[in-house]
Amino acid sequence: MTFEKLWGDLLPVGRYGPTGGYRRYSWTAADAECRAWFVEEATRRGLTVETDRNGNLWAWWGAPGPGAVVTGSHLDSVPDGGAFDGPLGVVSALAAIDLLRARGARPVRPLAVAVFVEEEGARFGVPCLGSRLLTGAISPERARGLRDADGVTLAEAVAAYGLDPDALGPDTERLRSIGVFVELHVEQGRGLVDLGAPVGVASSIWPHGRWRFDFTGEANHAGTTRLEDRRDPMLTFANTVLAARKKARLAGALATVGKVHVEPNGTNAIPSAVHAWLDARAPDEETLRAVVGEIVQAARERAARDGTGFAETCESYTPVVEFAGDLRDRLAGVLGGAPVLPTGAGHDAGVLAAEVPTAMLFVRNPTGVSHAPAEHAELPDCLAGVAALAAVLEDLGCR
Amino acid sequence: MTFEKLWGDLLPVGRYGPTGGYRRYSWTAADAECRAWFVEEATRRGLTVETDRNGNLWAWWGAPGPGAVVTGSHLDSVPDGGAFDGPLGVVSALAAIDLLRARGARPVRPLAVAVFVEEEGARFGVPCLGSRLLTGAISPERARGLRDADGVTLAEAVAAYGLDPDALGPDTERLRSIGVFVELHVEQGRGLVDLGAPVGVASSIWPHGRWRFDFTGEANHAGTTRLEDRRDPMLTFANTVLAARKKARLAGALATVGKVHVEPNGTNAIPSAVHAWLDARAPDEETLRAVVGEIVQAARERAARDGTGFAETCESYTPVVEFAGDLRDRLAGVLGGAPVLPTGAGHDAGVLAAEVPTAMLFVRNPTGVSHAPAEHAELPDCLAGVAALAAVLEDLGCR
Repeated sequence: MTFEKLWGDLLPVGRYGPTGGYRRYSWTAADAECRAWFVEEATRRGLTVETDRNGNLWAWWGAPGPGAVVTGSHLDSVPDGGAFDGPLGVVSALAAIDLLRARGARPVRPLAVAVFVEEEGARFGVPCLGSRLLTGAISPERARGLRDADGVTLAEAVAAYGLDPDALGPDTERLRSIGVFVELHVEQGRGLVDLGAPVGVASSIWPHGRWRFDFTGEANHAGTTRLEDRRDPMLTFANTVLAARKKARLAGALATVGKVHVEPNGTNAIPSAVHAWLDARAPDEETLRAVVGEIVQAARERAARDGTGFAETCESYTPVVEFAGDLRDRLAGVLGGAPVLPTGAGHDAGVLAAEVPTAMLFVRNPTGVSHAPAEHAELPDCLAGVAALAAVLEDLGCR
Repeated sequence: MTFEKLWGDLLPVGRYGPTGGYRRYSWTAADAECRAWFVEEATRRGLTVETDRNGNLWAWWGAPGPGAVVTGSHLDSVPDGGAFDGPLGVVSALAAIDLLRARGARPVRPLAVAVFVEEEGARFGVPCLGSRLLTGAISPERARGLRDADGVTLAEAVAAYGLDPDALGPDTERLRSIGVFVELHVEQGRGLVDLGAPVGVASSIWPHGRWRFDFTGEANHAGTTRLEDRRDPMLTFANTVLAARKKARLAGALATVGKVHVEPNGTNAIPSAVHAWLDARAPDEETLRAVVGEIVQAARERAARDGTGFAETCESYTPVVEFAGDLRDRLAGVLGGAPVLPTGAGHDAGVLAAEVPTAMLFVRNPTGVSHAPAEHAELPDCLAGVAALAAVLEDLGCR
């Protein structure tokens, strides 16, 4: 019952009625309510809660110290995201502690539940911002200057919640105290559905990146400009969308165009420019580079035909993350041979993996839908996730 | 010199520095400045200026009365439009009167210069709003309730400039007093360039319309959703853009997609919906209907392949306008056999043509560019336009 109670209390926070999705953006009222919920539940369990210099929350079972076993995830969401992406890992962590205590397990080394800020990057643009600041994967100078859509800087946003912007940045002592990090997360695809398993262990995170494509042409009157006189970037853009899908399919990769801005975006005017963002991912970096290269080449060729301009900018790139093999195998063993599978999604665990032994558990997602209101996991699978996380924490922390 | 002086005085008004385009939206400060310029120039010429119940301006040479010869155009602009679309007709009308007077011509029937409000529909969405209200082509109830992007109604906007919103609507007496209407306009294509002529006479306005296309799919995670599990409306949209261009090309029609809204428009999310607007035009209504039908059919077929939804809504439709043949031939004769050519652009003249004998003169546009900052006409061609309009006004009004 502990999982259901925790889950039910958090569920209404930051939910946006018209879409049924979540708008839990970091350092906003909804985020503050999520954080308050966590502090209250952790305190109720006798855990010692602290906020680190970067705004991440840590709830300790036992005194903080070296060799700590840390679990957790995040509470922020993408725009109109689902209820599970992030919160499932936090709720499951608290429920797993309850489960361990109920059966009399006691940690022999420090155990903590962490909540990382701005994992989705929905407000300030950089995903995994809290873990990146912790590990030094982003400089505090750059982070402080990040702005949200209203022009508010991260420095201003954290200051409004009582954090010192000048204290943002690498937290080496804390990082060194982490012996192992395990993040439980709802699966964001249908790998476990196909395998018929409620819980799995992550092998790797696909390399992924984000490219801005700028297609430029000539604004003109939609009613009087002959087709042969046009330099219409909408055509080049449209062809590139279809090319991206085709090239990704042939290579076994993923390519998505989810964000588009058109100028001047008038019904009766040929656009002067179309700006679009390509999200591309692949099992390995060579494939990813090849696919993006082919898409760019297709865009260039079509631009030449259309008389339009084309430019591409890589806005972010994350190399492949291979989770520690021995830890992965140990977890799969503790879970009685749970399946091991890769993911295309980025996580705080992917950032921490560069610094400390890190693993991930996935909970089955019956439809595979994520980053959308329909994201879901069945209760029995969530409870299987709690049991799996408890078994892993007991194995890593209580023996 | 009169044309250059008039043109130079109006040129800076409402110009937006960063783009070099014009933002002269009706019932705004820039629009008021344009109107004040017109009132001053008309008054300076001894013309009697009046504002009609719908906000259109009329400057009379001689007493208003039946059988009037009316010329004019509009002073408002599309977002970041050019300097010529509208203002060229107004400036040329005033310059033509100067030219007539300079050579001692005197009207034998009333002669007026009209400036119609909200021709572009850039603020309240309905193009040719001033002429539509005058002729009754739009009901005053519907017009009063039109809202701009900030939610301000037309009723509120006109009231702020001292007009009585309750007096908006058909102005039958004024309409009946118009014996003939002639609008001079910069050409918005390259018809006259190809014909090697500075001035031409309009034969017709192509039938045209605006359709909203709603492509719906399923929002999902860009990094983890297998291509075969996706219902991505961006693909259906992209294919439809290319289909629209192809179908239009094969039929000798025009099809443009210039406005797009994506939901939720996130980089790492497959869109839940793409909304796009199709602007389509053709030489005749049968062709237009056939082309739009083929584009809709292509969208439906692709939607079935993509597992997405597709719906279309016709937001506006304007049938073909054939300008009065005898008047057209008379103008072409007065101008020494000026070429006669159709246009794909809507105009106040197209609205008035349903009620009174109406004609249009086009002035050569060297690039064909319009609805964009680069819109242009060479000074010698503008002066040829003034001379042509003066000749036409003399023929219609002074004999």
